[in-house]
Amino acid sequence: MRAELVTIGTELLLGQIVNTNAAALAARLTQVGLDCYYVTTVGDNWTRLAEVLAQALGRSDVVITSGGLGPTQDDLTREVAAAVLGVPLEERPELWEAIQAYFRATGREAPEANRKQAFLPQGAEPIPNPVGTAPGFWVERNGKILIAVPGVPREMEWMVDHVILPRLARLAPEPLHSRVLRFTGLGESHLEQALEDLIRHQGRVTVAPYASPGEVRIRLSVRAATEAEAQSLLAPVEEAILERVGRYCFSRENEPLEVVVGRMLRERQLTLGVAESCTGGLIGHRLTSVPGSSAYFLGSLVTYANSAKEQILGVPAAILETHGAVSRETALAMAQGARDRLGAACGLAVTGIAGPGGATPTKPVGLVYVSATVGERAWVEEHRFQGDRGSIQARSAQAALDLLRRALLEGEGFPGRGVERTGGQV
Amino acid sequence: MRAELVTIGTELLLGQIVNTNAAALAARLTQVGLDCYYVTTVGDNWTRLAEVLAQALGRSDVVITSGGLGPTQDDLTREVAAAVLGVPLEERPELWEAIQAYFRATGREAPEANRKQAFLPQGAEPIPNPVGTAPGFWVERNGKILIAVPGVPREMEWMVDHVILPRLARLAPEPLHSRVLRFTGLGESHLEQALEDLIRHQGRVTVAPYASPGEVRIRLSVRAATEAEAQSLLAPVEEAILERVGRYCFSRENEPLEVVVGRMLRERQLTLGVAESCTGGLIGHRLTSVPGSSAYFLGSLVTYANSAKEQILGVPAAILETHGAVSRETALAMAQGARDRLGAACGLAVTGIAGPGGATPTKPVGLVYVSATVGERAWVEEHRFQGDRGSIQARSAQAALDLLRRALLEGEGFPGRGVERTGGQV
Repeated sequence: MRAELVTIGTELLLGQIVNTNAAALAARLTQVGLDCYYVTTVGDNWTRLAEVLAQALGRSDVVITSGGLGPTQDDLTREVAAAVLGVPLEERPELWEAIQAYFRATGREAPEANRKQAFLPQGAEPIPNPVGTAPGFWVERNGKILIAVPGVPREMEWMVDHVILPRLARLAPEPLHSRVLRFTGLGESHLEQALEDLIRHQGRVTVAPYASPGEVRIRLSVRAATEAEAQSLLAPVEEAILERVGRYCFSRENEPLEVVVGRMLRERQLTLGVAESCTGGLIGHRLTSVPGSSAYFLGSLVTYANSAKEQILGVPAAILETHGAVSRETALAMAQGARDRLGAACGLAVTGIAGPGGATPTKPVGLVYVSATVGERAWVEEHRFQGDRGSIQARSAQAALDLLRRALLEGEGFPGRGVERTGGQV
Repeated sequence: MRAELVTIGTELLLGQIVNTNAAALAARLTQVGLDCYYVTTVGDNWTRLAEVLAQALGRSDVVITSGGLGPTQDDLTREVAAAVLGVPLEERPELWEAIQAYFRATGREAPEANRKQAFLPQGAEPIPNPVGTAPGFWVERNGKILIAVPGVPREMEWMVDHVILPRLARLAPEPLHSRVLRFTGLGESHLEQALEDLIRHQGRVTVAPYASPGEVRIRLSVRAATEAEAQSLLAPVEEAILERVGRYCFSRENEPLEVVVGRMLRERQLTLGVAESCTGGLIGHRLTSVPGSSAYFLGSLVTYANSAKEQILGVPAAILETHGAVSRETALAMAQGARDRLGAACGLAVTGIAGPGGATPTKPVGLVYVSATVGERAWVEEHRFQGDRGSIQARSAQAALDLLRRALLEGEGFPGRGVERTGGQV
């Protein structure tokens, strides 16, 4: 089955936004074993959108469009899809009711403009949108499937994950089964070097590494008729990888670090207090992006100013004066301060120089200390990160969360990869 | 002049990387006044790449390809471009010498595989690549221009900025000038309703709204020979818009809210202390994403647990018991606590229910209070947001930052759009 994507929006053609939907959609099609051969981006223009849609339906079995489902005059996907399919647009009263209910829930009245979102090409099935106003649709005609989703990533992703992928998966011949292992603490090229022979001599299982700041993922995938067959093919390759680089692997289930660490805290019935400096709140933001995190996350004290490190966290002025705010000693005192001030079982802290300013001859941009305390034990690590401000902040948050993960494991005999144990109070 | 982009690479079709090149190239074409009508992504496949290139050269004046210029067997752009143009590939000895010199400079010998990078379609001018090995090329035939650049972003950007844009700028008739106004506090459809006639009856100036969570942008654009002419055309349209919805506009320079608020604090020589609950650190993260924010941002106290609200922020237990953690009164006490505990001039706080859990019969998911204090004055607002956890967190952070923006303006006589002023201590 051939699939292709049409991403719609003049702002994409002006380069005002990056087309993240294309990658998000393409990755999901791959997951269910559909080959995506083309992605076309076109603006909010009747003629060109019709041209692109007609071409796509001519050469592919499944066409997914994103964008152009909003309430404005620019939004043309419904009208053009109907025209290309040769069917009229029809109003669906139940959709207009759902849109009105969506607005009412926020204490507003639905503008009349949104009524156009209740129109669909004849024969189309609506795809519900619980996170926005624009319904999507799925329509089959002449052996082809046309699926339209909104351009807002959150709305698109909800529809694809909850409605579209499960249906498409049933259409693919041998679905692709994959498993994603997530690693931190080593670079992509080092990981690739360690696994070179596995990547080069691939059998039925494809081994593909890909990197983002502070993280490398390895996707193992195989086409197989059943989940059980896929597992029996994936398992030996996964074991071979983990034998070599398993100590850098924080998830075998494609989970982000905040989910892994959150689960570990919950299982151990431990609570966490965080102190952040150069990450500015990113660690707290990541931890609280997980529903239910209030069970273990008590708070994060973002102490940007030195005075806040003293007054809020109780970092002794002598430590700040002698060693500076970006130091091993301050990181430790921050972790202990967060733990004690928030009344938590564990403390986690980060202090560093995210740049572009703030460097000194001995303390360059990218110098970052992370520290964790679990009960009476304490750990601290020094890092030297490369990159711009955002990238250093992202890597620092990742390093801090990973230190806590290893600290929690070490209490159970995990070999603590280069962690300097300072043992108790400083 | 019509331009279009062809981005080449199977990894793009698998969704393994996001196509940032498309946005980077498109934004640059817009800068020099070229209209980009299509972006097509195609894999490393001879037949499909040839099909896409032939179509692009058929309908556009300028076609820019990125990717497929590397040394591996997958890299087909040179060969396919020559075939589609109907000319042979020719070796350029000077290019092979430059590639060998590039490797020598890093102490390595050029692999024989890289020799294929020295071949170009007959009649093509090479585009030098001082930051990598793959030369690009520029070829004109039958009144069309085909330009090929590497897929590696920094190599692509070097060629475009140093060689390609200056040449294309001389071909474009009138460059596009645009201006982006950013709004918060009203939805896309309400904004469009207020501006309907301006959007419908567009003259030379194009007015286009687009939305993201908690924000709507309006892009005004016009073709004009000079910056001064563009300004004289844009200014009256901008004024007409601001007359109607100016109180929702936080930037006329396409800046995010954290940059606007940061500048306002800096100009007024005020410092800020933040207290966050349901946003979990997102406000601190946004404020500290701005370089130099340490000049005004002292810290953010993320008090997730009620005990932390009491102990860290000094919210009276009686307020938490009587009104609950998600209440007008707690929000105010949090803003005052953050200000006082961090020793700041201003305080900002948010408390709410991000969901999916935590709702009560009287307090639904999405109920959020934001509060700001500037000196002795205090403001508080109630919001009811829709969406999932991430979307409610994003909207809450945006609402809090915007409240602070309006509070800072109100001190200077700005009409405070529905802000409930509570006046001093509660």
